[in-house]
Amino acid sequence: MYKKIVLSDGDIPTHYYNLMADLPFALDPPLHPGTKQPISPDDLAAIFPQALIEQEVSAQREIPIPEEVREVYRIYRPTPLIRATGLEMALKTPARIYFKHEGSSPVGSHKPNTAIAQAYYNKMEGTRRLVTETGAGQWGSSLAFACQKFDMECKVYMVRISFDQKPYRKVMMQLYGAEVLPSPSPATNAGREALRKDPKTPGSLGIAISEAIEEAASNEHAKYSLGSVLNHVLLHQTIIGQEAKKQLGMIGEKPDIIIGCHGGGSNFAGLAFPFIRDKLHGSDIEFIAVEPESCPTLTKGKFDYDFGDTSGTTPLMKMYTLGHDFIPPGIHAGGLRYHGAAPLISALVEHGIVRAEALPQNDVFRAAALFARTEGIIPAPESAHAIEMAIHEAIKARDEGRQKVIVFNLSGHGHFDMSAYQAYLEGSLENGRKESSDGDKMSFGVAC
Amino acid sequence: MYKKIVLSDGDIPTHYYNLMADLPFALDPPLHPGTKQPISPDDLAAIFPQALIEQEVSAQREIPIPEEVREVYRIYRPTPLIRATGLEMALKTPARIYFKHEGSSPVGSHKPNTAIAQAYYNKMEGTRRLVTETGAGQWGSSLAFACQKFDMECKVYMVRISFDQKPYRKVMMQLYGAEVLPSPSPATNAGREALRKDPKTPGSLGIAISEAIEEAASNEHAKYSLGSVLNHVLLHQTIIGQEAKKQLGMIGEKPDIIIGCHGGGSNFAGLAFPFIRDKLHGSDIEFIAVEPESCPTLTKGKFDYDFGDTSGTTPLMKMYTLGHDFIPPGIHAGGLRYHGAAPLISALVEHGIVRAEALPQNDVFRAAALFARTEGIIPAPESAHAIEMAIHEAIKARDEGRQKVIVFNLSGHGHFDMSAYQAYLEGSLENGRKESSDGDKMSFGVAC
Repeated sequence: MYKKIVLSDGDIPTHYYNLMADLPFALDPPLHPGTKQPISPDDLAAIFPQALIEQEVSAQREIPIPEEVREVYRIYRPTPLIRATGLEMALKTPARIYFKHEGSSPVGSHKPNTAIAQAYYNKMEGTRRLVTETGAGQWGSSLAFACQKFDMECKVYMVRISFDQKPYRKVMMQLYGAEVLPSPSPATNAGREALRKDPKTPGSLGIAISEAIEEAASNEHAKYSLGSVLNHVLLHQTIIGQEAKKQLGMIGEKPDIIIGCHGGGSNFAGLAFPFIRDKLHGSDIEFIAVEPESCPTLTKGKFDYDFGDTSGTTPLMKMYTLGHDFIPPGIHAGGLRYHGAAPLISALVEHGIVRAEALPQNDVFRAAALFARTEGIIPAPESAHAIEMAIHEAIKARDEGRQKVIVFNLSGHGHFDMSAYQAYLEGSLENGRKESSDGDKMSFGVAC
Repeated sequence: MYKKIVLSDGDIPTHYYNLMADLPFALDPPLHPGTKQPISPDDLAAIFPQALIEQEVSAQREIPIPEEVREVYRIYRPTPLIRATGLEMALKTPARIYFKHEGSSPVGSHKPNTAIAQAYYNKMEGTRRLVTETGAGQWGSSLAFACQKFDMECKVYMVRISFDQKPYRKVMMQLYGAEVLPSPSPATNAGREALRKDPKTPGSLGIAISEAIEEAASNEHAKYSLGSVLNHVLLHQTIIGQEAKKQLGMIGEKPDIIIGCHGGGSNFAGLAFPFIRDKLHGSDIEFIAVEPESCPTLTKGKFDYDFGDTSGTTPLMKMYTLGHDFIPPGIHAGGLRYHGAAPLISALVEHGIVRAEALPQNDVFRAAALFARTEGIIPAPESAHAIEMAIHEAIKARDEGRQKVIVFNLSGHGHFDMSAYQAYLEGSLENGRKESSDGDKMSFGVAC
């Protein structure tokens, strides 16, 4: 019986898998916020490099991973596939539960998978500085890590309240050589405007995004970088599922259920897409995207065109949305607090290929604590949504007496979320309570 | 060229390597604190199980690892051996630098290697509860993790100032199901006495050890557990070096220099002992134990009998010591703040088989920051001592134009030391500054 299925450097995927090539339906195009007409690649050229714009619209099934990118992946990939034997025993389930441990990356999540690729493609086109926004810092530290590998500048606009109250991710970004500014900052029009309205504002990701995009658009040597939602970001994450498929194959397992938490969609897509390809070709696999009850984008939102950001400056995307002015409560799974969802995943849900479920915060933390006791690993609150759903399915399998194979993505560890666990242990956690430090409207730097 | 050398579950060592069997000299025996006569195994029976007492004095070269222990090791072992290619490039050195990544364990250090074994042997002899002390919590969380794997109670006396000011490791211990008390506590005579003298005392590891030993000795179902210094603890850590030897062999490398940080001795011994066996049989390898300038046990202490604790209740051990009443400054590498050293390592230094070096805190943090930028991993401040020494040797190799093979132990990650990195980035770090939260006299829960 295997506990860990490990791969060697040579097993790192050589291609990204592009689900677009196998979709049985067409996606509605993004629309220009002004003209409401389908956007042209040129509309994006000011903030993204050509290579990523091409990937955003590509229908090519396999897109080669540059050797320079695979070289950086070697620092932490392939990641192990681990059988949750301790959890299985605790649940007395006949189900076999496996998780892909993306929390084993140096930054602590799956985010570097796309950050490294984005930094590389930008470097190739002469970009000297990547600019982004971050809330608690998960995405910002991943991009900082990636930029220093390619000797590029990284500038991160960090929501001020997090900058002040949650300094450890900031310290991590600075150790990776990034410049971190509290947002709103006096460095941009958007920032100055926000400060004029309220000099004491705690800031929000909405403002931070506006600042980052403004700097990228107005500086010929700078580009903007996004941590989730867009097609090319999901594309880069598919190395997770490709590795998992190989690892399951090594021990002769076929998954019945694939689970990932869902905020913007990148970690769910990363694990699921290579298996969805199989489903589209006939295999019988269930896919479950798990979100917080307090931000029920896929389960309660409507499938319609909406802006990706708060201020309505991004292209209109056809997706499940709670409305771009929706303010999610300040749950601890900050990475899942996004009003929208990846257009690709939204379409898969709309077509019944992916099932969406929403869970309350306290159940999720109870599952996280059980996982910590049984497997030793303290999960990120975001990832714990996938754990709780895996437990649901494992108990169902037990009650039905079926030996299901359940695979979920452990998108990150919880070493920088210990204050949330402290609140849980002290019983002061609520199911989606307000928390000023997370009181922003949306997040692109989502952990899922 | 390999970046990571990974092993499979099946490669986890089947035996602990006992250096005692190959030592070319005899060790001076521990003496009874009262009679000053060599202690008998019975003297230790009140606080340790027979199996560990036997390992403490065993001369058997290979001691089988119980399958139940290997089963728990599978959660995180074998750990990867990683080539520090980024660091090599930054240093422009012809040396090849490898590190064993013990920070990849769920708890974040090498400590579980012995915690798991100690929990198992205690369980086998009917111990229901293990009691220990902890400062910042590295050792306490490892023992808590191990106890819950064997369904045992774990009680940790945590220095009150850390309990109050550094809650995250406490939260980790509680997530693993441990009972954590601030020390001094009203639960023991030692604690009550300390509280009587000073109700507001911040506590110290000296007091916490007295409390833990008192409870273990006075409760028939409880035993005491130690995280370093003793022979059996170092013995359990030798799985690190055995794995590293196999991994180097896989790529045809032979080490010229082996480096580990040194507090009580367990992580240095873990990597070095299996290679010291080779040296004792003729191979030409250098061994360097690295300690902080502010607590220069091996470099400035005297080789003599001394107590392992502050209050003078433990057996007298022949070791390098700064005196059991020595109070090290509050450096951030709390795991290296021990007045003494493992008797085995002390003897190896005395006989010129191991070289000891002392480094200033700021140089160590500069090395840690360079490592974070080049390898992505944020190291524990303790482990950074080994990194700084590896850098010294790699630069020396460059200047001499020699292709040395340098191997060091990355004993832990620094995710729970970010406040120290913040101080470093803000320039407020000193070389061994006082810090009330570390103002205790010694540490058995050392990270090295």
